[in-house]
Amino acid sequence: MPYRAPTSEYTFLFDAVVGFDQLAATDRFAEATPDLVTAILGEAGRLCDDVMAPLQRSGDLQPAHLENGVLRSSPGFPEGWSAIAEGGWVGMNAGTDHGGMGLPLTLATAVNEMMAGACLSLQLAPLMSQGQIDALEAHASDQIKEIYLPKLISGEWSGTMNLTEPQAGSDVGALRSKAEDNGDGTYAISGQKIFISWGDNDFAENIVHLVLARLPDAAPGSKGISLFVVPKFLPDENGNPGRANNLKVVSLEHKMGLHGSPTCVMQYDGATGWLVGEPHAGLAAMFTMMNNARLGVGGQGVGAGEGAYQHALDYALERKQGRSASGAIVDHADVRRMLMEMKADLFASRAVLLSCAHAIDMHAATGRADHAARAAFLTPIAKVFGTETGMKVSETGVQVYGGMGFIEESGAAQYYRDVRVTAIYEGTNGIQAMDLVGRKMLDGGEAAYALIDEIETLAESARSNHPNMTDRLWQANEALREATDWLVTQEDMQNRFAGALPYLRAFARVLGGYYHLRAAVADPEGPRAKLARFYMSRLLPEYQGHLAAATAGADGTFALSLDELRA
Amino acid sequence: MPYRAPTSEYTFLFDAVVGFDQLAATDRFAEATPDLVTAILGEAGRLCDDVMAPLQRSGDLQPAHLENGVLRSSPGFPEGWSAIAEGGWVGMNAGTDHGGMGLPLTLATAVNEMMAGACLSLQLAPLMSQGQIDALEAHASDQIKEIYLPKLISGEWSGTMNLTEPQAGSDVGALRSKAEDNGDGTYAISGQKIFISWGDNDFAENIVHLVLARLPDAAPGSKGISLFVVPKFLPDENGNPGRANNLKVVSLEHKMGLHGSPTCVMQYDGATGWLVGEPHAGLAAMFTMMNNARLGVGGQGVGAGEGAYQHALDYALERKQGRSASGAIVDHADVRRMLMEMKADLFASRAVLLSCAHAIDMHAATGRADHAARAAFLTPIAKVFGTETGMKVSETGVQVYGGMGFIEESGAAQYYRDVRVTAIYEGTNGIQAMDLVGRKMLDGGEAAYALIDEIETLAESARSNHPNMTDRLWQANEALREATDWLVTQEDMQNRFAGALPYLRAFARVLGGYYHLRAAVADPEGPRAKLARFYMSRLLPEYQGHLAAATAGADGTFALSLDELRA
Repeated sequence: MPYRAPTSEYTFLFDAVVGFDQLAATDRFAEATPDLVTAILGEAGRLCDDVMAPLQRSGDLQPAHLENGVLRSSPGFPEGWSAIAEGGWVGMNAGTDHGGMGLPLTLATAVNEMMAGACLSLQLAPLMSQGQIDALEAHASDQIKEIYLPKLISGEWSGTMNLTEPQAGSDVGALRSKAEDNGDGTYAISGQKIFISWGDNDFAENIVHLVLARLPDAAPGSKGISLFVVPKFLPDENGNPGRANNLKVVSLEHKMGLHGSPTCVMQYDGATGWLVGEPHAGLAAMFTMMNNARLGVGGQGVGAGEGAYQHALDYALERKQGRSASGAIVDHADVRRMLMEMKADLFASRAVLLSCAHAIDMHAATGRADHAARAAFLTPIAKVFGTETGMKVSETGVQVYGGMGFIEESGAAQYYRDVRVTAIYEGTNGIQAMDLVGRKMLDGGEAAYALIDEIETLAESARSNHPNMTDRLWQANEALREATDWLVTQEDMQNRFAGALPYLRAFARVLGGYYHLRAAVADPEGPRAKLARFYMSRLLPEYQGHLAAATAGADGTFALSLDELRA
Repeated sequence: MPYRAPTSEYTFLFDAVVGFDQLAATDRFAEATPDLVTAILGEAGRLCDDVMAPLQRSGDLQPAHLENGVLRSSPGFPEGWSAIAEGGWVGMNAGTDHGGMGLPLTLATAVNEMMAGACLSLQLAPLMSQGQIDALEAHASDQIKEIYLPKLISGEWSGTMNLTEPQAGSDVGALRSKAEDNGDGTYAISGQKIFISWGDNDFAENIVHLVLARLPDAAPGSKGISLFVVPKFLPDENGNPGRANNLKVVSLEHKMGLHGSPTCVMQYDGATGWLVGEPHAGLAAMFTMMNNARLGVGGQGVGAGEGAYQHALDYALERKQGRSASGAIVDHADVRRMLMEMKADLFASRAVLLSCAHAIDMHAATGRADHAARAAFLTPIAKVFGTETGMKVSETGVQVYGGMGFIEESGAAQYYRDVRVTAIYEGTNGIQAMDLVGRKMLDGGEAAYALIDEIETLAESARSNHPNMTDRLWQANEALREATDWLVTQEDMQNRFAGALPYLRAFARVLGGYYHLRAAVADPEGPRAKLARFYMSRLLPEYQGHLAAATAGADGTFALSLDELRA
């Protein structure tokens, strides 16, 4: 049951739903013509189908491991990385100054998601490099850029991000790693970092770590953190990997899934590093990296869900059981329901993801604040909705397989195990939701209302052709507006936080309806409209439950004492 | 982080929610006094806490395996089985004629769930025996009962059920295993069976297989299936294990979870068996076994969820992160929300489970048809709600742990992996839902309306003391009534089936509200009422989304062609 990258889905979304043509109309992305987009998607699709998808099981069955302190990646992964690097896919969104393709993030997001569906473990490696490239482009000195960016973009070197420490997870400000000035423009970095994805590999010439640490005079908390670039091998005068740095992989975690991707405990013992950006401004720089990474993780969720859907559908078409039109289980109503839910949710979450990327691109191309605000607002939604869809779809995929879904050989279980981490890393989904109702609504909800207004406008203009669907969406959107009114007037932030994730889920549900309606408008008699109707009648209505929870306030959430919780 | 069996939760549920006193008022269960119940729960709790819980990780890390065709169970499992057997827990619900305790199923369900929370893999072994004991008590000849029941009840022997074949899963009627009359009162059984839980072990003297097979003159489909008892060792004239039968374990499945429980491929090559019940009436006999097993699997879901909740709560109390009242993450609003949802859902699903068992017991004690109808109606709901709660709670448990949840050492991931199968075996959750809206509503919805009327009555009587909660419940219940009206008038069964699982979920949500309200009535100012309010305001409202999907009909579900699903 091979994986087929959903290239035509992207073409449709670009054309009919997220407005890719607006990007191509800017100077910055003028080269991103429909022909180029088609060519890129086709080329990336072949990489996914032919090179990456065959590695999916190998990564699970033969995990990355340490041999005498040396990391050995799963069989085929080095060749897979080479193919990704040689295709230019690591640097597709990077600036052309240092060898990147300079493509819109919207297109890069699509390619990343396709790669995630093919082989999530391997795809995480270029995703980490991309985040690092973003951060260095935005914050590093020209000298550092010259040394690192060309190698990272070409894939000769790979990148990691080092935030977490045992006592500092979601609360990054609690980290203790130290940086001391060596007086020669370098710093000595010491400390332990955990949960470092692809902290080492056997396919890049050099591994470049971006490490958060504290300078001696640093303030406590998140305002005293600086960012350093700390390579595994110190570049020599020609920029080639030279002497080994004082850092090592201590151990690998034994994880529930994503076995092909080594999760490292890293030890820095006075390792040589260079400051990126200003002293004590490391968290802001790291957030550049994390913002795009959050979008990337949302894409991992959707990608894994796509893989799970394709496998489940293939099984449902093949598996004969009971009496039905075709004899296959796909003709049983409950199985068909599951497949339709999977497909409708994948469409919705993918559209949110691409709309977020589109806003980021439009901001990059125009500098307009409204695009920046939309990008900031959609980022946590894209992360949560993408990863929750990935979990839900992969869980449903196991269910479609029945008993075989619990057997590892079917591959269905791997999607379910692998995708689970996406709701956790790059900021747990709870943290994302707090970001949404906190920081992202400090504007009084302006970005939220802009979307709600836009949805209302579409619902009204599409009403005559799609009365039933638009009525449902209009009602949901009005309920969302009322909940937003309630939320932005809550002075006690606990009231927002206690309903944060339900509010995010409701917003995602309504956004999904918005994009489904756009698809229906573009294809009013065809399968897009049919899928949209299914979504509006069966999935959109979930917003009601979410909004009830979103506006219930914090009192009930904290009603039980700790002893009562324990009882 | 030890597991503590939730004995006081059961005491409360028995006393205040499910009406255990009605059972004790019958002749049949007159001995089940409050003192006895307390003693039983205490004794079982100690077994769970001290003996079974320590085996949870060992089963995962050192799975059952075959050594030269001989099954070796996980370390400590043989001792665990002995403790279960010696405590009399295998036969707690079995008749006293053959050594059972004759306890109400309501109490046995509680004990089974506690054991499932302690160690799901091991608990599956006695659960299988219990199902077999039920089937033999109901259908076997006196001679078979005399030989098998005392040994099964004492735990000297263990039992399995053999239904599934590679081509016959949910469609049991497609099975091909053969039984030929040996002319001496025995039959020669031949065929391959798959997914046989605990198909062998190294702790029982004998393994008794109940096997479905076809006699030579059998009709095709499910009307031509007979049930046979096929022991691993043929009993000698004294009833002791004698000559080895012609059957073997071919292989074990490599599963996502539940590693401590071996899932066997069994081969029968003219194995000697004895007919149980009438020829060609095997499916009915097997359904006796499966009915209680479905309830048992619902309890597995709740039990695993309880284990996941306790671990997540312990972690949330210990893990310091960020700024909060205690410094621990339990004081973060989103973490508290997760824990409250877990606790509220565990209460609701446990109450449904016990109410179902209570109806079965009341039918056994009184023979009244209304109790039988209620038991039949609640069984699929208890199975689905229990297992979906187990999945949701264990998924949330992983989330509470954050990054550590994805690391196997934390134990959170094991609950998530293990519990996943409960939504599949003993009839997938989709099959359960079809049973509910199909067979279980052939009465025109009588059993459904009886519950809905009962809920309405409580909502009205409790209104003055709990106006807000009862309003919410009353509205949900009326919406459920309307959806039920719609459902029972659908002549086209596809319309019912396409909404079957959402309908079941809505019914479960409303039932959960019903039992929470009962708890609040019993404890109007205390933690029970607080938890009930949380449930009513935040979880009950999910019924709206479910009912929308339940009544959307089949047209939209089948709107896409197979090619369009694939596109």
